[in-house]
Amino acid sequence: MRHRLPLLACLLALSPLTAAARAYGDEGMWLLNQFPSETVKQRYGFDPDQKWLHHVQLGSVRLAGGCSGSFVSKDGLILTNHHCAHACIEQLSTPTDDRVKAGFLAKTRADEVRCPEIEINDLTDIQDVTADVQKATAGLTGKPYNDARKAISAHLEKACADADPKPDRVRCDVVTLFHGARYDLYKYRRYQDVRLVFAPELGEAFFGGDPDNFNFPRFDLDMSLLRVYQDGQPLHPSDHFPLSKRGTKEGDLTFVSGHPGGTDRQLTLAQLLYLRDVAQPDRLLQLAEIRGLITEYQLRGPEEKRHSTDLLFAIENSFKAIRGRQVALTTPPLMADKTAEEAELKARIAKDPKLSAKAGSSFEAIEKALARQRQIRIPYSYEEGGRGFQSTFFGLARTLVRGAAERPKPNDTRFPEFRDSVLPQVSQRLFSSAPIFPELEIETLTYSLTKLREELGADDAFVRKVLGKKSPRTLAKELVNGTKLADVGLRKTLWEGGSKAVDASQDPMIALARLIDDDARKIRKVYEDEVEAVVKKNEELLAQARAEVFGTKTYPDATFTLRLSYGKVQGWNENGNPVAPYTTFGGAFDRATGEPPFDLPPTWLAAEKKLKLDTPLDFVTTNDIIGGNSGSPVINQKAEVVGLIFDGNIHSLGGDFGFDGTSNRAVAVDSRAILEALSKIYGAEYLAKELSQ
Amino acid sequence: MRHRLPLLACLLALSPLTAAARAYGDEGMWLLNQFPSETVKQRYGFDPDQKWLHHVQLGSVRLAGGCSGSFVSKDGLILTNHHCAHACIEQLSTPTDDRVKAGFLAKTRADEVRCPEIEINDLTDIQDVTADVQKATAGLTGKPYNDARKAISAHLEKACADADPKPDRVRCDVVTLFHGARYDLYKYRRYQDVRLVFAPELGEAFFGGDPDNFNFPRFDLDMSLLRVYQDGQPLHPSDHFPLSKRGTKEGDLTFVSGHPGGTDRQLTLAQLLYLRDVAQPDRLLQLAEIRGLITEYQLRGPEEKRHSTDLLFAIENSFKAIRGRQVALTTPPLMADKTAEEAELKARIAKDPKLSAKAGSSFEAIEKALARQRQIRIPYSYEEGGRGFQSTFFGLARTLVRGAAERPKPNDTRFPEFRDSVLPQVSQRLFSSAPIFPELEIETLTYSLTKLREELGADDAFVRKVLGKKSPRTLAKELVNGTKLADVGLRKTLWEGGSKAVDASQDPMIALARLIDDDARKIRKVYEDEVEAVVKKNEELLAQARAEVFGTKTYPDATFTLRLSYGKVQGWNENGNPVAPYTTFGGAFDRATGEPPFDLPPTWLAAEKKLKLDTPLDFVTTNDIIGGNSGSPVINQKAEVVGLIFDGNIHSLGGDFGFDGTSNRAVAVDSRAILEALSKIYGAEYLAKELSQ
Repeated sequence: MRHRLPLLACLLALSPLTAAARAYGDEGMWLLNQFPSETVKQRYGFDPDQKWLHHVQLGSVRLAGGCSGSFVSKDGLILTNHHCAHACIEQLSTPTDDRVKAGFLAKTRADEVRCPEIEINDLTDIQDVTADVQKATAGLTGKPYNDARKAISAHLEKACADADPKPDRVRCDVVTLFHGARYDLYKYRRYQDVRLVFAPELGEAFFGGDPDNFNFPRFDLDMSLLRVYQDGQPLHPSDHFPLSKRGTKEGDLTFVSGHPGGTDRQLTLAQLLYLRDVAQPDRLLQLAEIRGLITEYQLRGPEEKRHSTDLLFAIENSFKAIRGRQVALTTPPLMADKTAEEAELKARIAKDPKLSAKAGSSFEAIEKALARQRQIRIPYSYEEGGRGFQSTFFGLARTLVRGAAERPKPNDTRFPEFRDSVLPQVSQRLFSSAPIFPELEIETLTYSLTKLREELGADDAFVRKVLGKKSPRTLAKELVNGTKLADVGLRKTLWEGGSKAVDASQDPMIALARLIDDDARKIRKVYEDEVEAVVKKNEELLAQARAEVFGTKTYPDATFTLRLSYGKVQGWNENGNPVAPYTTFGGAFDRATGEPPFDLPPTWLAAEKKLKLDTPLDFVTTNDIIGGNSGSPVINQKAEVVGLIFDGNIHSLGGDFGFDGTSNRAVAVDSRAILEALSKIYGAEYLAKELSQ
Repeated sequence: MRHRLPLLACLLALSPLTAAARAYGDEGMWLLNQFPSETVKQRYGFDPDQKWLHHVQLGSVRLAGGCSGSFVSKDGLILTNHHCAHACIEQLSTPTDDRVKAGFLAKTRADEVRCPEIEINDLTDIQDVTADVQKATAGLTGKPYNDARKAISAHLEKACADADPKPDRVRCDVVTLFHGARYDLYKYRRYQDVRLVFAPELGEAFFGGDPDNFNFPRFDLDMSLLRVYQDGQPLHPSDHFPLSKRGTKEGDLTFVSGHPGGTDRQLTLAQLLYLRDVAQPDRLLQLAEIRGLITEYQLRGPEEKRHSTDLLFAIENSFKAIRGRQVALTTPPLMADKTAEEAELKARIAKDPKLSAKAGSSFEAIEKALARQRQIRIPYSYEEGGRGFQSTFFGLARTLVRGAAERPKPNDTRFPEFRDSVLPQVSQRLFSSAPIFPELEIETLTYSLTKLREELGADDAFVRKVLGKKSPRTLAKELVNGTKLADVGLRKTLWEGGSKAVDASQDPMIALARLIDDDARKIRKVYEDEVEAVVKKNEELLAQARAEVFGTKTYPDATFTLRLSYGKVQGWNENGNPVAPYTTFGGAFDRATGEPPFDLPPTWLAAEKKLKLDTPLDFVTTNDIIGGNSGSPVINQKAEVVGLIFDGNIHSLGGDFGFDGTSNRAVAVDSRAILEALSKIYGAEYLAKELSQ
C-alpha cells in the first residue's frame, strides 16, 4: 500500500504477528475511545480529536435488529439502508399496497408510519468495567466462572439503567472486547418510536439483486429514511451529520462509523477449524436448501412472492457472505498463516513462565471444548437453538413460555435474553403488529421439523416426542392453523399473566414450547457448562496473554458495538483490470435490461431526462467494514455524510478473518446520488433540503 | 476384528501403510481375477476356486446407468433394486396409471414392458492390456500422453468389438485400475431389450424414505425384477443364481458381487484436499438448493409430485452420501492418517533413486494441476460440464450437436463419449421414448441458468452470450416451450442427418447447444491438457511406485467394474447399543405410522395376517461396498442369492476413503423376504417359483 507509514513499520518490526502489525492498508475497526488518530494524521494529514470523535459517536446510531445508521437532520431523521428497513417496509405493506415494490414517501410528517420492530440505540457513555468483572470471576473456572461472569454483567447493566431518571429510555450492555481482555459498559439512549419517511422501490434499492450483491460496479440507491419520535414529537438529537452536496473525489479520506457485527480475526486455530469444518458448512447447506425452497415458494403467486421477499433476500445475503468466508478458510495461504501466527504466540507464552502458568493450557482447553461442541451441536441447535422450529409463531410461544419462567427470577440469574436490559426489545417484538403469514409459516416449520427428524434421526426420543406418528407437514399445519398467537392481545394477556396463564393455555404452539422446554434447557446447560464456560474463560486468558506479549494498541474483533474505520476512495485491480471507484446514474440506465433484477422502476425511467447522468451513484473505499456496518455513514473530515455504506465487494467477505487492503472494498451510495434522486426522481425536495442542513 | 489372520498380520509388519495392510476386517472390493481366496479360506474355511469365481462373474450383471444386478433364473430374470429401476417405472407410468405408487406385476410374459433406457452388461472376458497402453504412451507427458492414452483405449475397444461376430451385441471398455498401474480390457455382452416384470409399491420399496436412508434397522423391500430379451425371446443366460429359501443366520459367510462405482482410497493428499475444500462442498450446496426447490415443486400438485419423485430421491441420496464423505474428511483422525501415509510413501520413494527419478515430483505435479483446476472449475463445470444447462432437452441437443461433429472423426480421436464402444448406449438414450416434462424442465433449466449467472457473474461474456438481456426464467421458458425435441422422430432425423441437418436446424435448444459449443470445447481443452493429462500421468507414476514399494497383492479403487467382497452377517455397536443384524416383517408393521414415509401400502396391510411375521426382511453384513453396488446379489458358498444389497449404513459413507470394519455395514433385503412377499402379498407365486430354480 502506498500509504504505509513509519509508525506501522515500527510496529511491524516490534511484533510481526500482532493484529496491529498485520494492519497494512487501512485495516481496523477501531474503538472510538482508542482511535489511532496519530496514524490517521500521519497518513492523511487530519487529526481526529476527542471533540470530533465524540460528535461522531453521538451522531451514529445502531438499529438493534442488526444494522447501523446516523442522525442526518436536527429533526431526528435517520439515514440507513433500504435493506435495513426492508422488513419494516414489508410489515407496513398489504397485498394491495405493496410499499416494497412501489416505494414509500411520507408527504407530510403526519404520513410517517411507525415501524413495528425497529429499535434505535444511540451510544452516550462508555465505562471500563474490566476490574469489576475480573473481581467477580477471580479464581473461578467452568460453570462457576460462567455464572459469575453473567451475574456481574446483569448487575452492572441493571445498576446503570436504574441510575438513569428514565430507565426504560436507556439501554446498558456489558460488552466483551478483545475476547475478554477488556469489558466495557455501554450506555445507549433507546428509541422505539421510529417511523418510515422514505424508501425507494426495491427494484432500484436492490438493483441487480443477488447477482450483483457483493459485487461492483454497482448501481443501487440502497437507502431509506426513518424519523425518531419521542413523546409523539420528532426527536431533536444532540448531534447529526448533514449530507454533503460536494461528495468526494478519488483519494479522499473517508471515515465509516458503524456497528460491525462480528469478526473472527483473533480466534484460535481450533476455533477456525470448527468454523471451517463444522459450523459454516452446516449453515451453508441449511441456507442453500431453504433458499431453493423459498425461491420455488415465490412462484405460488404474487402475494406469496410479496410476503417472502425479505426472507429470501436475507437468506441469499447470508449465503453469499458465509460462502465467501468459507472460501477464505479453504484457500491457501490463510490457514497456513494462521497456523504460523498461533505457533508464534504459543512459543512466546511457553517462553514466559508466568504466562505459561496462566494460559499455557488454554489452546488445548478450547480445542477439547470444541470437540465436545461437535458432539452436542445437533441436539443443541435443533432443540434449544430453535433450528427445529423455524416459525414466528413458535418464537412468540417460546418467548412467552420462557419469559413466564425467567422473569420472576432475580435479574442476575436469568437467561441473558430476559435480563431487564433487553426486556424492552423483547416486548417490542412480542407485541409487534407486523403481520404473520400462515402459509409461509407452514413451509418454514415443515422444513425445520423435517430437518429435525433428519438430523436427530427418526428414532430419537426428542423427535418422537415432538412428531409422534405425524409427518412434519401434518404437525406444522395443525400447529400453525391451530394457534391463536396472531392475536397481539392474547400475547399481552399471556405475557402479563405469567406462568399461571401460560401453563393454562391450550394453544397448540404454546403447548409445543412447553413440551420441549425441559429438553431444551437440559442441552443448553450442557452447552453452557461444558463448551461456553471453557471457551470464554480460556479466550480471556489467551487474550490477556496476547495483550502482554504484543501490547494493546490494536482494535478488538467486532462485536456489534460502535467502531470507526478510516480509509479513502479508491478502486482496485481485478485480474489485471482496474475497477474505477465511482459509478453514475448513466451507468444504471446502461445496465438496465428491463428484466428483473436489472429492471429500473418507472420513476427512474420517467426521470431519465431530468437527471444529471454523470452524478456519482455508488462508490468504493478502502474502509475496513463487515456485516452490521450496513447503513453506516461515510463521513468526511467535517463530519458530513458523503456516502452510505450498503455492501462490501466480493473480496471483503474474507475480511472476517483478516483484512486485505489491496482488494477489500466497502461499497457506498454517494451523498450526491441521494440528493439528486430525492429532488429529481421522487419529488422530495423538502427532504433533500432537510438533509443538507 | 476377531478374524484378523496371520497373512494379514504379516503384511502389516511388512508395510504398515499399504491399502492391503490397512485391510482389517473384511475390507476390499476385490478383482475377480485377483481374489484373495486363501485369506477367505483361512478366515471362513471356504476356498472360492476359479470355477466358482467364473460362475459368479457370469451370473453378475451391471446396469450401465449405474447399478448392479444378477441373473436369477434360467429365463433371464434379473434381480435388482427398486431404486435402480425407479426411473424406468416412472417412465412407464402416466398421470392416470402410476406404477411407482401402485407397483407393477406382469401377469404373463406378454405383459412385461420394455424399459426405455436400461442397458445390461454381462462381463465375459478380461484381458490385461497394460503393456499396450504403456507402449503407446512411453516417454510422453502432458497432452501428447493424454491423447495417446485415449487413442490406444479407443483402438483396443474397437478391435475387441470388431473381433466379435456381432459387434453391437458386445461392449468393450479399457478399464483403468490402481490409478493406472494396470489397464484391463473388459468385454461384456450388451443387452438393451430389458423389460419390467415386477416392482412393489414405492411406499414399501423405500419405506422410511430419506429419513431411513443409510440407516438401520430398515424395513424395505427394495427390489425389482427385470427380464432380458434377445431377438424377442427371453434370454437364457449361461449362469444364474437361484434364490435361497433358507437364507442366512448371524455369522454366515457372505459374498457380494457387484459394481462399486468409485472409491477414493488411494488419492494423494492434494486430491483429498481438493475434494474436501472445493469439489464436495460445492456439490453439496448445489444439491441442497435444488433439493429445496424440488421439495417445494412437488407441492404444486399430484402430477408434479409424480414426475419429480425419482429426481428428488436421486438428489437426496447423493446429498446424504456426499455429506457422509465430507464428514469423514473433516472428522479427525482421517486426514492425519492420510498425511502420515503419504509422508511414508514419499519417504520410501525418496530413499530409492530409481523411484525418485520416476515419481519424485509427482505429488507436486498433481498439486499444481489441482491449483489450476481450482481456477477453471467454474467455467469448466458450467459451460462444458452442463451444469449451466440442466435440462433433458438440452442434453439431447448437445448430444446431437456434438455427435454431428464427433462421429465423422476417426474413432481414436473422438471425445470418449462418442467412441464406437459407447454409441449404442448413447443412441438408446437419444431415442428413448421416456416422457419429458416441460414444467419440470423449465424449473431445472431456470435454476441452472441462474447459477450460471451467479457463479460466472452477470458481466461475464459467456453469460451475456447465453442470456442476452433475458432473465433465466424467460430464457428457460422460451427454450423449453420452443423446442421440438420431444419428438423422437426429429431426433432420429437430426442424428442421421449429421452436421448438415444439425446446422440447418432452427430448434432453439439445438441453437443454444451450437451457440456455446466453441466456448465449451475451449474450456474442456484447458481442463484436459492442463489438469487431466497431468493428474492421470502422475497418478500412474505414483501407482507404479506404490506397487513397487508395497507390492500388488491388494485391490484397486472402485471404478464401476465387477468386484467381489467377502464378509459375514453381523450387527454392530452404536454408541454402546448393539444393533441386531436382522429385521422382520413384524418390525415393519410396528414401525408403520400411517404417515409418509412410514406408511405401508394397502397390499401389505391386507396381507398382514397371512404373513409369517418373523420372516427376516432386511439384514446387514460386513461386506465392503459403496454406491454402484446397489442391486448386487449377496450370495452364499453355493452361489445362491441370500440377499439383495440396497444400501449401506451411515458409517459406510466414509468408506469412500477407507474401510472401518467395526461399524461399516452393507444393508440387504433377505431372500426369504423376497419369496414371502411375492407369494403372500403380491400373488406372484409363479415368480417365486422361477426364482427358486
